[in-house]
Amino acid sequence: MIAPSPFQSVPLSQAYRLLNHGPTVLVSSAHGDRRNVMAAAWNMPLDFDPPKVAVVIDKATLTRELIEASGQFVLAIPGRDLAERTLAAGSCSGREGDKFEALGLDVLPASQVQVPLPAGCIGWLECRVIDEPHIQRTYDLFLGEVVAAWADSDMYSAGRWHFPEQGRSSIHYVSGGQFFATGEAFEVDRKA
Amino acid sequence: MIAPSPFQSVPLSQAYRLLNHGPTVLVSSAHGDRRNVMAAAWNMPLDFDPPKVAVVIDKATLTRELIEASGQFVLAIPGRDLAERTLAAGSCSGREGDKFEALGLDVLPASQVQVPLPAGCIGWLECRVIDEPHIQRTYDLFLGEVVAAWADSDMYSAGRWHFPEQGRSSIHYVSGGQFFATGEAFEVDRKA
Repeated sequence: MIAPSPFQSVPLSQAYRLLNHGPTVLVSSAHGDRRNVMAAAWNMPLDFDPPKVAVVIDKATLTRELIEASGQFVLAIPGRDLAERTLAAGSCSGREGDKFEALGLDVLPASQVQVPLPAGCIGWLECRVIDEPHIQRTYDLFLGEVVAAWADSDMYSAGRWHFPEQGRSSIHYVSGGQFFATGEAFEVDRKA
Repeated sequence: MIAPSPFQSVPLSQAYRLLNHGPTVLVSSAHGDRRNVMAAAWNMPLDFDPPKVAVVIDKATLTRELIEASGQFVLAIPGRDLAERTLAAGSCSGREGDKFEALGLDVLPASQVQVPLPAGCIGWLECRVIDEPHIQRTYDLFLGEVVAAWADSDMYSAGRWHFPEQGRSSIHYVSGGQFFATGEAFEVDRKA
């Protein structure tokens, strides 16, 4: 079990910054007494204010069923210490049993949606589905409005990710069990 | 000027791997005798086979005008050595003059579309717009089918990014001129 870290509210106008650098996320969902968590490398910010996100959710998944039933989801950003569980979350189905329990992921309550926040992550975006049935059906593409955003104060402060602990930096999935860690931060001079 | 590197064709069924880890891209476009290049952190793969991508293209941009006129675009993946030019490409408009020239970006011909490939990048996806006027208009969201994919043989081989030269690894934009380099590769055991 991973103890929850102290976390801070992220202003909605800066919520895009949690996803801007392209991390792989966990998608958390719930409806009635059912809940699930899956992994999604195919996600991106879609707008600044009000903040929106886009994420691909395959038709075959329990997550898809729960999101369509509830109209809500959470994108949670796992650190490298959760890479094995992120891969596992993307490799089995919640139809075989509660994946939070199977993965040993504790949960925290969300503030604006009835969806659990996977504990031990470094950031969370609470989202309400923007109903676009055609692109949901045709491309498995879900758009969401971000209604609350949170980040681990150790890893995100002053409006930026910092990753002082490399073992908890965000991760980027490629394929076949291979990830890249988010690497060195660098600044580019706008006047250059 | 950056000399073109040797590059290889990437099988279309693996084209998603060029974007899977969430790099910031350059969006190249052309129509008639006009051409442009802009930066886009908001991009993601959308499907495996046939491969599709999604990218956000603001209404105000010349790129939007050229893509809507031609129905084609290229997503090019710049390495860290192009970070200054990537930021600059995202900070000025092609309406003020040819941005390839202003940025000192050479171009290579694409194979399936009439859009220039920015030279010196480490990967390229040639795309045809999938016409979805409602989401283009409402969310500035463009979907494309990938019709050809290329990668720099030094950085991508055996179906994977490698980044032996850290100075040319892909980059992830956050905000305010700050990027992260793509960091250390690591493997997770599926059986873990």
